[in-house]
Amino acid sequence: MTQKAFQDYYTEDFSHCYGCGRLNEHGLQIKSFWDGDESVAKFLPSENHIAIPGYVYGGLIASLIDCHCVGTASAATYKAEGRSMDTEPALRFVTASLKVDYLAPTPLGVELEIRAKVSEVTKKKVIIEAKVIADNKTCAKGYVVSVPMPKSMGTK
Amino acid sequence: MTQKAFQDYYTEDFSHCYGCGRLNEHGLQIKSFWDGDESVAKFLPSENHIAIPGYVYGGLIASLIDCHCVGTASAATYKAEGRSMDTEPALRFVTASLKVDYLAPTPLGVELEIRAKVSEVTKKKVIIEAKVIADNKTCAKGYVVSVPMPKSMGTK
Repeated sequence: MTQKAFQDYYTEDFSHCYGCGRLNEHGLQIKSFWDGDESVAKFLPSENHIAIPGYVYGGLIASLIDCHCVGTASAATYKAEGRSMDTEPALRFVTASLKVDYLAPTPLGVELEIRAKVSEVTKKKVIIEAKVIADNKTCAKGYVVSVPMPKSMGTK
Repeated sequence: MTQKAFQDYYTEDFSHCYGCGRLNEHGLQIKSFWDGDESVAKFLPSENHIAIPGYVYGGLIASLIDCHCVGTASAATYKAEGRSMDTEPALRFVTASLKVDYLAPTPLGVELEIRAKVSEVTKKKVIIEAKVIADNKTCAKGYVVSVPMPKSMGTK
């Protein structure tokens, strides 16, 4: 894809997240993009991200959904305001609530696709639904309520 | 504590989980214990487990709740059956649903306490409520529905 990832618009201070920070060399470095009205991220778990042999552990699935949806919340809000993600003021979000339903064991060794749809954008919150797909099968569904980052956390 | 952790009763095949496997040298190696009717795990996030500077990223909180609650589901079922965790047949659980409400930013640099209470134990599922405490403050609450591991995943 030739688009710039949502997370690559984050300012340096906000680019250290273990899940999606481009500057966290130990982290997952999730990258999210628009694909029509949905957002998509792709991720290949490492062999350490194991639950039992052959399957991905649930905490990684939750992490992928969380960071992908928070990035999508930011991107969707810029879009709703008719602004590019590189314009000020910067919009950063945090997760108020995350729910993951694990529908089927997620196989290890294949690239996962995380797809999200925004179901509500208001000034107070963005609600997003996501699914994690492996080998064309939806293995998990996620529901995220994302809210603007509180000033106490350092939003500029 | 002189108790053996729930996870240390898992057989070798089930001890590779990134979140709680004692044999996953790259993983979190969460250890859960009974403390009266509640279960407790303690965990010191690394400086890489960052959201933005000073705070723990949400995916780690979700992972801690997930693995601690799944371990608690197993321990609670052994307890309900009046059996020690080292007796056969082995009881292993997986997460059907995980919900995390993030109540306050979780500070980085302090040991986190994850406490869980079992609210329902049946043959089909175990329901558990958890909280993550930092500096005596509850930063997140979790709700986990845990079910016996499907035979297709290798339960003996």
